[in-house]
Amino acid sequence: MDETMARFFIAGTNLFGGTAIIRGRDAEHVHVLRLKPGEDVVICDGQGTDYKCRLVRADKEEAECEVIEVVPCPAEPSVKVTVLCGLPKGDKTDYIIQKCVEAGAEEILFFRSKRCVAKPELPEKKLERWQRISEEAAKQSGRGIIPRVGWCGEFADALNEAAHKDLGLFMYETGEREKLDEVLKAHADVKTAAILTGPEGGFEPFEAELARICGLHLCSMGERILRCETAPVVALTAAMFATGNLG
Amino acid sequence: MDETMARFFIAGTNLFGGTAIIRGRDAEHVHVLRLKPGEDVVICDGQGTDYKCRLVRADKEEAECEVIEVVPCPAEPSVKVTVLCGLPKGDKTDYIIQKCVEAGAEEILFFRSKRCVAKPELPEKKLERWQRISEEAAKQSGRGIIPRVGWCGEFADALNEAAHKDLGLFMYETGEREKLDEVLKAHADVKTAAILTGPEGGFEPFEAELARICGLHLCSMGERILRCETAPVVALTAAMFATGNLG
Repeated sequence: MDETMARFFIAGTNLFGGTAIIRGRDAEHVHVLRLKPGEDVVICDGQGTDYKCRLVRADKEEAECEVIEVVPCPAEPSVKVTVLCGLPKGDKTDYIIQKCVEAGAEEILFFRSKRCVAKPELPEKKLERWQRISEEAAKQSGRGIIPRVGWCGEFADALNEAAHKDLGLFMYETGEREKLDEVLKAHADVKTAAILTGPEGGFEPFEAELARICGLHLCSMGERILRCETAPVVALTAAMFATGNLG
Repeated sequence: MDETMARFFIAGTNLFGGTAIIRGRDAEHVHVLRLKPGEDVVICDGQGTDYKCRLVRADKEEAECEVIEVVPCPAEPSVKVTVLCGLPKGDKTDYIIQKCVEAGAEEILFFRSKRCVAKPELPEKKLERWQRISEEAAKQSGRGIIPRVGWCGEFADALNEAAHKDLGLFMYETGEREKLDEVLKAHADVKTAAILTGPEGGFEPFEAELARICGLHLCSMGERILRCETAPVVALTAAMFATGNLG
Protein backbone atom coordinates (compact mmCIF):
# COMPACT_ATOMS: atom_id res chain seq x y z
CA MET A 1 0.00 0.00 0.00
CA ASP A 2 1.16 3.48 -0.78
CA GLU A 3 1.18 5.07 2.63
CA THR A 4 0.57 8.52 1.20
CA MET A 5 -2.78 7.50 -0.27
CA ALA A 6 -5.85 8.99 1.42
CA ARG A 7 -7.92 6.42 3.20
CA PHE A 8 -11.63 6.38 4.06
CA PHE A 9 -13.89 3.97 5.83
CA ILE A 10 -17.10 3.08 4.11
CA ALA A 11 -19.38 4.82 6.61
CA GLY A 12 -20.89 7.62 4.57
CA THR A 13 -19.94 5.92 1.31
CA ASN A 14 -22.17 4.16 -1.18
CA LEU A 15 -20.56 1.41 -3.20
CA PHE A 16 -22.53 0.10 -6.14
CA GLY A 17 -21.19 -1.61 -9.23
CA GLY A 18 -17.85 -0.06 -9.97
CA THR A 19 -18.63 3.33 -8.41
CA ALA A 20 -18.21 4.68 -4.89
CA ILE A 21 -19.85 7.86 -3.66
CA ILE A 22 -18.23 9.50 -0.63
CA ARG A 23 -20.53 11.82 1.33
CA GLY A 24 -20.64 13.88 4.51
CA ARG A 25 -17.55 14.44 6.68
CA ASP A 26 -15.40 12.23 4.44
CA ALA A 27 -16.39 14.23 1.35
CA GLU A 28 -15.34 17.39 3.19
CA HIS A 29 -12.07 15.67 3.98
CA VAL A 30 -11.50 14.87 0.29
CA HIS A 31 -12.10 18.56 -0.37
CA VAL A 32 -9.73 19.70 2.40
CA LEU A 33 -7.01 17.40 1.07
CA ARG A 34 -7.48 19.09 -2.34
CA LEU A 35 -7.64 15.71 -4.04
CA LYS A 36 -8.23 16.09 -7.76
CA PRO A 37 -9.90 13.88 -10.37
CA GLY A 38 -7.47 11.16 -11.46
CA GLU A 39 -5.93 10.86 -7.99
CA ASP A 40 -6.19 7.59 -6.08
CA VAL A 41 -7.88 6.97 -2.75
CA VAL A 42 -8.56 3.83 -0.76
CA ILE A 43 -12.01 3.09 0.60
CA CYS A 44 -12.07 0.40 3.24
CA ASP A 45 -15.19 -1.56 4.14
CA GLY A 46 -14.14 -1.84 7.78
CA GLN A 47 -14.16 -5.63 7.44
CA GLY A 48 -10.60 -5.94 6.15
CA THR A 49 -11.25 -5.28 2.44
CA ASP A 50 -9.78 -2.31 0.57
CA TYR A 51 -11.33 -0.74 -2.53
CA LYS A 52 -8.63 1.03 -4.49
CA CYS A 53 -10.40 3.88 -6.24
CA ARG A 54 -9.73 6.73 -8.64
CA LEU A 55 -11.41 10.07 -8.04
CA VAL A 56 -13.78 11.05 -10.86
CA ARG A 57 -15.20 14.28 -9.42
CA ALA A 58 -15.34 15.95 -6.02
CA ASP A 59 -16.96 18.90 -4.35
CA LYS A 60 -17.63 19.78 -0.70
CA GLU A 61 -20.72 17.56 -0.50
CA GLU A 62 -19.82 14.55 -2.56
CA ALA A 63 -16.94 12.73 -4.20
CA GLU A 64 -17.40 10.13 -6.91
CA CYS A 65 -14.80 7.43 -7.42
CA GLU A 66 -14.26 4.59 -9.84
CA VAL A 67 -13.31 1.29 -8.17
CA ILE A 68 -10.06 0.03 -9.72
CA GLU A 69 -9.21 -2.98 -7.56
CA VAL A 70 -10.62 -4.88 -4.59
CA VAL A 71 -7.95 -6.35 -2.26
CA PRO A 72 -7.63 -7.65 1.30
CA CYS A 73 -6.23 -4.84 3.45
CA PRO A 74 -2.52 -5.68 3.82
CA ALA A 75 -2.29 -3.94 7.21
CA GLU A 76 -4.50 -6.44 9.01
CA PRO A 77 -2.51 -8.90 11.11
CA SER A 78 -3.06 -12.65 10.79
CA VAL A 79 -3.87 -12.89 14.51
CA LYS A 80 -6.86 -11.17 16.09
CA VAL A 81 -5.74 -9.82 19.46
CA THR A 82 -8.20 -8.56 22.03
CA VAL A 83 -6.53 -6.16 24.47
CA LEU A 84 -8.24 -6.09 27.89
CA CYS A 85 -7.11 -3.39 30.31
CA GLY A 86 -7.98 -2.63 33.88
CA LEU A 87 -9.51 0.85 33.63
CA PRO A 88 -6.76 3.40 34.31
CA LYS A 89 -7.12 6.97 35.51
CA GLY A 90 -7.50 10.05 33.33
CA ASP A 91 -6.69 10.06 29.66
CA LYS A 92 -4.46 6.98 29.75
CA THR A 93 -7.38 5.17 28.08
CA ASP A 94 -6.98 7.42 25.04
CA TYR A 95 -3.30 6.67 24.80
CA ILE A 96 -3.90 2.92 25.10
CA ILE A 97 -6.54 3.03 22.38
CA GLN A 98 -4.48 5.04 19.93
CA LYS A 99 -1.29 3.02 20.34
CA CYS A 100 -2.98 -0.39 20.38
CA VAL A 101 -4.86 0.43 17.16
CA GLU A 102 -1.58 1.42 15.53
CA ALA A 103 0.09 -1.74 16.84
CA GLY A 104 -2.63 -3.97 15.36
CA ALA A 105 -5.24 -4.76 18.03
CA GLU A 106 -8.56 -6.27 16.91
CA GLU A 107 -10.46 -4.77 19.85
CA ILE A 108 -9.67 -2.89 23.04
CA LEU A 109 -11.86 -3.42 26.08
CA PHE A 110 -11.64 -1.94 29.57
CA PHE A 111 -12.73 -3.68 32.72
CA ARG A 112 -12.92 -3.02 36.46
CA SER A 113 -10.62 -4.95 38.77
CA LYS A 114 -9.93 -4.78 42.49
CA ARG A 115 -7.21 -2.15 42.37
CA CYS A 116 -8.91 0.18 39.86
CA VAL A 117 -9.02 3.66 41.33
CA ALA A 118 -10.67 5.19 38.28
CA LYS A 119 -14.42 5.33 38.54
CA PRO A 120 -16.05 3.55 35.66
CA GLU A 121 -18.35 6.41 34.74
CA LEU A 122 -19.12 5.56 31.18
CA PRO A 123 -21.66 7.87 29.69
CA GLU A 124 -22.44 7.23 26.04
CA LYS A 125 -20.34 10.30 25.21
CA LYS A 126 -17.15 8.70 26.53
CA LEU A 127 -17.67 5.49 24.59
CA GLU A 128 -18.27 7.56 21.46
CA ARG A 129 -15.06 9.48 22.06
CA TRP A 130 -13.10 6.23 22.53
CA GLN A 131 -14.52 4.86 19.30
CA ARG A 132 -13.60 8.09 17.48
CA ILE A 133 -9.99 7.80 18.72
CA SER A 134 -9.94 4.27 17.34
CA GLU A 135 -11.34 5.39 13.99
CA GLU A 136 -8.80 8.19 13.66
CA ALA A 137 -5.90 5.90 14.55
CA ALA A 138 -7.21 3.24 12.16
CA LYS A 139 -7.32 5.72 9.28
CA GLN A 140 -3.95 7.17 10.07
CA SER A 141 -2.20 3.81 10.37
CA GLY A 142 -3.91 2.26 7.34
CA ARG A 143 -5.92 -0.37 9.20
CA GLY A 144 -8.58 -2.41 7.39
CA ILE A 145 -10.96 -2.37 10.34
CA ILE A 146 -11.94 0.13 12.99
CA PRO A 147 -11.06 -1.78 16.15
CA ARG A 148 -13.96 -1.94 18.55
CA VAL A 149 -13.40 -0.11 21.82
CA GLY A 150 -15.68 -0.72 24.72
CA TRP A 151 -16.47 -1.51 28.29
CA CYS A 152 -16.11 -5.14 29.20
CA GLY A 153 -17.49 -5.02 32.73
CA GLU A 154 -16.03 -6.66 35.80
CA PHE A 155 -12.80 -8.65 36.10
CA ALA A 156 -14.71 -11.92 35.69
CA ASP A 157 -16.16 -10.68 32.39
CA ALA A 158 -12.65 -9.96 31.15
CA LEU A 159 -11.51 -13.44 32.20
CA ASN A 160 -14.44 -14.90 30.33
CA GLU A 161 -13.52 -12.97 27.17
CA ALA A 162 -9.91 -14.14 27.41
CA ALA A 163 -10.73 -17.76 28.15
CA HIS A 164 -12.54 -18.05 24.81
CA LYS A 165 -9.46 -17.15 22.74
CA ASP A 166 -6.85 -19.56 21.39
CA LEU A 167 -4.32 -17.97 23.74
CA GLY A 168 -4.91 -15.94 26.90
CA LEU A 169 -2.05 -13.88 28.32
CA PHE A 170 -2.22 -12.36 31.79
CA MET A 171 0.53 -9.81 32.47
CA TYR A 172 1.61 -10.06 36.07
CA GLU A 173 4.48 -8.46 37.92
CA THR A 174 5.33 -10.92 40.62
CA GLY A 175 5.46 -14.56 41.67
CA GLU A 176 5.67 -17.63 39.50
CA ARG A 177 5.18 -16.74 35.86
CA GLU A 178 6.11 -17.85 32.38
CA LYS A 179 8.26 -15.69 30.16
CA LEU A 180 6.10 -13.81 27.66
CA ASP A 181 8.54 -14.44 24.81
CA GLU A 182 8.59 -18.20 25.43
CA VAL A 183 4.80 -18.46 25.65
CA LEU A 184 4.42 -16.50 22.43
CA LYS A 185 7.04 -18.52 20.58
CA ALA A 186 5.26 -21.73 21.61
CA HIS A 187 1.93 -20.37 20.26
CA ALA A 188 3.05 -18.53 17.13
CA ASP A 189 0.25 -20.04 15.03
CA VAL A 190 -2.77 -18.93 17.06
CA LYS A 191 -5.60 -17.15 15.26
CA THR A 192 -7.04 -15.35 18.29
CA ALA A 193 -5.43 -14.11 21.49
CA ALA A 194 -6.26 -11.99 24.51
CA ILE A 195 -3.89 -9.83 26.52
CA LEU A 196 -4.92 -8.76 30.03
CA THR A 197 -3.13 -5.94 31.79
CA GLY A 198 -3.90 -4.36 35.14
CA PRO A 199 -4.72 -0.83 36.30
CA GLU A 200 -2.17 1.45 38.02
CA GLY A 201 -1.79 -0.80 41.06
CA GLY A 202 -1.64 -4.06 39.11
CA PHE A 203 -3.63 -7.17 39.94
CA GLU A 204 -4.44 -8.75 43.30
CA PRO A 205 -2.92 -12.20 43.89
CA PHE A 206 -6.41 -13.73 43.90
CA GLU A 207 -7.07 -12.26 40.47
CA ALA A 208 -3.88 -13.84 39.13
CA GLU A 209 -4.89 -17.13 40.68
CA LEU A 210 -8.32 -16.97 39.03
CA ALA A 211 -6.66 -16.24 35.70
CA ARG A 212 -4.42 -19.27 36.12
CA ILE A 213 -7.42 -21.48 36.93
CA CYS A 214 -9.16 -20.18 33.79
CA GLY A 215 -6.25 -21.39 31.67
CA LEU A 216 -4.57 -18.04 31.07
CA HIS A 217 -0.79 -17.85 30.98
CA LEU A 218 0.62 -15.67 33.76
CA CYS A 219 3.43 -13.85 31.98
CA SER A 220 6.41 -11.71 32.87
CA MET A 221 7.80 -9.10 30.50
CA GLY A 222 11.23 -9.00 32.10
CA GLU A 223 12.31 -7.13 35.19
CA ARG A 224 11.43 -3.68 33.96
CA ILE A 225 8.19 -2.45 35.47
CA LEU A 226 5.94 -1.00 32.81
CA ARG A 227 3.33 1.67 33.42
CA CYS A 228 -0.26 0.51 33.07
CA GLU A 229 -0.59 2.40 29.79
CA THR A 230 2.69 1.03 28.40
CA ALA A 231 2.20 -2.66 29.21
CA PRO A 232 -0.62 -3.36 26.72
CA VAL A 233 1.31 -1.75 23.85
CA VAL A 234 4.50 -3.66 24.64
CA ALA A 235 2.68 -6.99 25.08
CA LEU A 236 0.70 -6.47 21.87
CA THR A 237 3.86 -5.60 19.95
CA ALA A 238 5.49 -8.77 21.26
CA ALA A 239 2.48 -10.79 20.07
CA MET A 240 2.66 -9.18 16.63
CA PHE A 241 6.38 -9.90 16.44
CA ALA A 242 6.00 -13.54 17.49
CA THR A 243 3.22 -14.22 14.98
CA GLY A 244 5.09 -12.73 12.04
CA ASN A 245 3.08 -9.52 11.86
CA LEU A 246 5.87 -7.03 12.39
CA GLY A 247 7.89 -7.18 9.20
CA MET B 1 13.54 -7.68 42.36
CA ASP B 2 10.62 -6.80 44.55
CA GLU B 3 8.82 -4.23 42.47
CA THR B 4 7.38 -2.51 45.51
CA MET B 5 10.81 -1.65 46.90
CA ALA B 6 11.79 2.02 46.80
CA ARG B 7 14.62 2.70 44.42
CA PHE B 8 17.22 5.46 44.41
CA PHE B 9 20.09 6.36 42.17
CA ILE B 10 23.38 7.05 43.81
CA ALA B 11 23.47 10.76 42.95
CA GLY B 12 23.25 12.41 46.35
CA THR B 13 24.25 9.21 48.10
CA ASN B 14 27.52 8.37 49.79
CA LEU B 15 28.50 4.72 49.84
CA PHE B 16 31.40 3.79 52.08
CA GLY B 17 32.11 0.40 53.58
CA GLY B 18 28.80 -1.21 54.32
CA THR B 19 26.93 2.05 54.82
CA ALA B 20 25.02 4.31 52.44
CA ILE B 21 23.96 7.85 53.28
CA ILE B 22 21.09 9.27 51.22
CA ARG B 23 20.93 13.07 51.13
CA GLY B 24 19.04 15.90 49.47
CA ARG B 25 15.96 15.32 47.32
CA ASP B 26 16.21 11.55 47.71
CA ALA B 27 16.29 11.84 51.50
CA GLU B 28 13.13 13.92 51.31
CA HIS B 29 11.64 11.20 49.15
CA VAL B 30 12.48 8.55 51.77
CA HIS B 31 10.72 10.79 54.28
CA VAL B 32 7.66 11.29 52.05
CA LEU B 33 7.37 7.54 51.50
CA ARG B 34 7.34 7.17 55.32
CA LEU B 35 9.98 4.45 55.12
CA LYS B 36 10.94 3.23 58.57
CA PRO B 37 14.12 1.72 60.03
CA GLY B 38 14.24 -1.96 59.13
CA GLU B 39 12.61 -1.44 55.74
CA ASP B 40 14.49 -2.28 52.56
CA VAL B 41 15.45 0.08 49.75
CA VAL B 42 17.55 -0.36 46.64
CA ILE B 43 20.31 2.09 45.79
CA CYS B 44 21.53 1.84 42.24
CA ASP B 45 24.91 3.12 41.11
CA GLY B 46 23.57 4.07 37.68
CA GLN B 47 26.07 1.69 36.09
CA GLY B 48 23.88 -1.39 36.35
CA THR B 49 24.70 -2.42 39.92
CA ASP B 50 22.10 -2.54 42.69
CA TYR B 51 22.88 -2.15 46.40
CA LYS B 52 20.14 -3.79 48.43
CA CYS B 53 20.01 -1.83 51.67
CA ARG B 54 18.19 -1.76 54.97
CA LEU B 55 17.19 1.59 56.45
CA VAL B 56 18.90 2.29 59.77
CA ARG B 57 17.59 5.81 60.43
CA ALA B 58 15.95 8.55 58.40
CA ASP B 59 14.93 12.17 58.78
CA LYS B 60 14.14 14.89 56.24
CA GLU B 61 17.79 15.68 55.56
CA GLU B 62 19.46 12.31 55.65
CA ALA B 63 18.80 8.59 55.59
CA GLU B 64 21.35 6.02 56.69
CA CYS B 65 21.24 2.51 55.26
CA GLU B 66 23.16 -0.70 55.82
CA VAL B 67 24.22 -2.45 52.59
CA ILE B 68 22.92 -6.04 52.63
CA GLU B 69 23.77 -7.29 49.17
CA VAL B 70 25.40 -6.06 45.96
CA VAL B 71 23.90 -7.49 42.76
CA PRO B 72 23.76 -6.71 39.03
CA CYS B 73 20.48 -4.90 38.31
CA PRO B 74 18.21 -7.59 36.83
CA ALA B 75 16.23 -5.06 34.79
CA GLU B 76 19.13 -4.22 32.46
CA PRO B 77 18.80 -5.90 29.07
CA SER B 78 21.66 -7.91 27.58
CA VAL B 79 21.68 -5.70 24.50
CA LYS B 80 22.47 -1.99 24.59
CA VAL B 81 20.11 -0.24 22.20
CA THR B 82 20.62 3.36 21.13
CA VAL B 83 17.37 4.90 19.92
CA LEU B 84 17.89 7.72 17.42
CA CYS B 85 14.84 9.78 16.47
CA GLY B 86 14.29 12.55 13.98
CA LEU B 87 13.24 15.46 16.22
CA PRO B 88 9.42 15.52 16.34
CA LYS B 89 7.17 18.43 17.20
CA GLY B 90 5.88 19.41 20.63
CA ASP B 91 6.03 17.08 23.58
CA LYS B 92 6.35 13.89 21.54
CA THR B 93 9.99 13.87 22.62
CA ASP B 94 8.86 13.45 26.24
CA TYR B 95 6.66 10.52 25.34
CA ILE B 96 9.45 8.85 23.34
CA ILE B 97 11.88 9.27 26.23
CA GLN B 98 9.55 7.92 28.90
CA LYS B 99 8.41 4.89 26.91
CA CYS B 100 11.83 3.99 25.52
CA VAL B 101 13.35 4.09 29.02
CA GLU B 102 10.60 1.75 30.25
CA ALA B 103 11.12 -0.51 27.24
CA GLY B 104 14.87 -0.82 27.94
CA ALA B 105 16.79 1.71 25.80
CA GLU B 106 20.44 2.40 26.66
CA GLU B 107 20.30 5.94 25.30
CA ILE B 108 17.88 8.13 23.37
CA LEU B 109 19.22 10.72 20.98
CA PHE B 110 17.42 13.16 18.71
CA PHE B 111 18.70 14.41 15.40
CA ARG B 112 17.67 16.77 12.60
CA SER B 113 16.74 15.30 9.23
CA LYS B 114 15.39 16.79 6.03
CA ARG B 115 11.72 16.54 6.90
CA CYS B 116 11.97 17.75 10.49
CA VAL B 117 9.54 20.59 11.01
CA ALA B 118 10.37 21.03 14.67
CA LYS B 119 13.03 23.65 15.29
CA PRO B 120 15.96 22.22 17.18
CA GLU B 121 16.01 24.93 19.82
CA LEU B 122 17.84 23.16 22.54
CA PRO B 123 18.57 25.39 25.44
CA GLU B 124 20.27 23.72 28.36
CA LYS B 125 16.91 23.74 30.16
CA LYS B 126 15.30 21.44 27.63
CA LEU B 127 18.13 18.92 27.77
CA GLU B 128 17.86 19.00 31.57
CA ARG B 129 14.13 18.33 31.37
CA TRP B 130 14.67 15.42 28.98
CA GLN B 131 17.24 13.92 31.32
CA ARG B 132 14.87 14.34 34.26
CA ILE B 133 12.12 12.47 32.37
CA SER B 134 14.61 9.68 31.78
CA GLU B 135 15.61 9.59 35.44
CA GLU B 136 12.00 9.44 36.60
CA ALA B 137 11.13 6.69 34.14
CA ALA B 138 14.29 4.77 35.11
CA LYS B 139 13.36 4.89 38.79
CA GLN B 140 9.76 3.96 38.17
CA SER B 141 10.58 1.02 35.92
CA GLY B 142 13.43 -0.30 38.05
CA ARG B 143 16.24 0.35 35.58
CA GLY B 144 19.85 -0.01 36.64
CA ILE B 145 21.03 2.98 34.62
CA ILE B 146 19.62 6.39 33.82
CA PRO B 147 19.57 6.26 30.03
CA ARG B 148 21.34 9.20 28.48
CA VAL B 149 19.09 11.54 26.52
CA GLY B 150 20.59 14.08 24.21
CA TRP B 151 20.97 15.87 20.97
CA CYS B 152 22.86 13.97 18.32
CA GLY B 153 23.08 16.67 15.66
CA GLU B 154 22.44 16.28 11.97
CA PHE B 155 21.26 13.20 10.10
CA ALA B 156 24.86 12.30 9.21
CA ASP B 157 25.80 12.31 12.90
CA ALA B 158 22.97 9.88 13.60
CA LEU B 159 24.16 7.62 10.76
CA ASN B 160 27.64 7.72 12.21
CA GLU B 161 26.35 6.72 15.66
CA ALA B 162 24.37 3.82 14.17
CA ALA B 163 27.16 2.59 11.90
CA HIS B 164 29.35 1.92 14.95
CA LYS B 165 26.90 -0.55 16.53
CA ASP B 166 26.77 -4.30 15.96
CA LEU B 167 23.41 -3.82 14.26
CA GLY B 168 21.92 -0.69 12.71
CA LEU B 169 18.21 -0.61 11.95
CA PHE B 170 16.66 2.11 9.80
CA MET B 171 12.85 2.18 9.95
CA TYR B 172 11.50 3.12 6.56
CA GLU B 173 7.97 3.13 5.22
CA THR B 174 8.38 2.48 1.54
CA GLY B 175 10.40 0.76 -1.18
CA GLU B 176 12.66 -2.24 -0.89
CA ARG B 177 13.16 -3.20 2.72
CA GLU B 178 13.89 -6.16 4.94
CA LYS B 179 11.34 -7.36 7.45
CA LEU B 180 12.25 -6.12 10.93
CA ASP B 181 11.41 -9.45 12.54
CA GLU B 182 13.65 -11.39 10.14
CA VAL B 183 16.58 -9.00 10.58
CA LEU B 184 16.26 -9.20 14.36
CA LYS B 185 15.98 -12.99 14.41
CA ALA B 186 19.15 -13.21 12.29
CA HIS B 187 21.01 -10.95 14.77
CA ALA B 188 19.64 -12.13 18.10
CA ASP B 189 23.09 -12.26 19.70
CA VAL B 190 24.21 -8.68 19.13
CA LYS B 191 25.54 -6.70 22.09
CA THR B 192 24.84 -3.24 20.71
CA ALA B 193 22.23 -1.96 18.29
CA ALA B 194 20.88 1.32 16.96
CA ILE B 195 17.34 2.07 15.85
CA LEU B 196 16.71 5.08 13.60
CA THR B 197 13.22 6.46 13.15
CA GLY B 198 12.12 9.54 11.26
CA PRO B 199 10.23 12.72 12.19
CA GLU B 200 6.53 13.25 11.34
CA GLY B 201 7.08 13.20 7.58
CA GLY B 202 9.45 10.23 7.58
CA PHE B 203 12.75 10.08 5.75
CA GLU B 204 13.69 11.33 2.31
CA PRO B 205 14.66 8.63 -0.22
CA PHE B 206 18.24 9.97 -0.30
CA GLU B 207 18.45 9.56 3.47
CA ALA B 208 17.37 5.94 3.18
CA GLU B 209 19.94 5.39 0.45
CA LEU B 210 22.70 6.89 2.61
CA ALA B 211 21.64 4.61 5.45
CA ARG B 212 21.86 1.60 3.16
CA ILE B 213 25.33 2.62 1.98
CA CYS B 214 26.43 2.94 5.62
CA GLY B 215 25.46 -0.67 6.23
CA LEU B 216 22.20 -0.08 8.07
CA HIS B 217 19.28 -2.44 7.49
CA LEU B 218 16.28 -0.68 5.93
CA CYS B 219 13.40 -2.30 7.79
CA SER B 220 9.63 -2.51 7.50
CA MET B 221 7.41 -3.02 10.52
CA GLY B 222 4.49 -4.38 8.52
CA GLU B 223 1.88 -2.44 6.62
CA ARG B 224 0.57 -0.47 9.55
CA ILE B 225 1.88 3.07 9.53
CA LEU B 226 3.16 4.05 12.94
CA ARG B 227 3.24 7.60 14.26
CA CYS B 228 6.71 9.04 14.70
CA GLU B 229 6.39 8.75 18.47
CA THR B 230 5.12 5.15 18.32
CA ALA B 231 7.68 3.71 15.90
CA PRO B 232 10.73 3.87 18.23
CA VAL B 233 8.84 2.16 21.07
CA VAL B 234 7.54 -0.62 18.81
CA ALA B 235 10.94 -1.20 17.16
CA LEU B 236 12.71 -1.20 20.52
CA THR B 237 10.19 -3.67 21.95
CA ALA B 238 10.76 -5.93 18.95
CA ALA B 239 14.52 -5.78 19.55
CA MET B 240 14.03 -6.65 23.22
CA PHE B 241 11.77 -9.55 22.29
CA ALA B 242 14.18 -10.92 19.68
CA THR B 243 17.18 -10.77 22.02
CA GLY B 244 15.40 -12.56 24.87
CA ASN B 245 14.89 -9.46 27.01
CA LEU B 246 11.13 -9.53 27.24
CA GLY B 247 10.35 -12.48 29.47
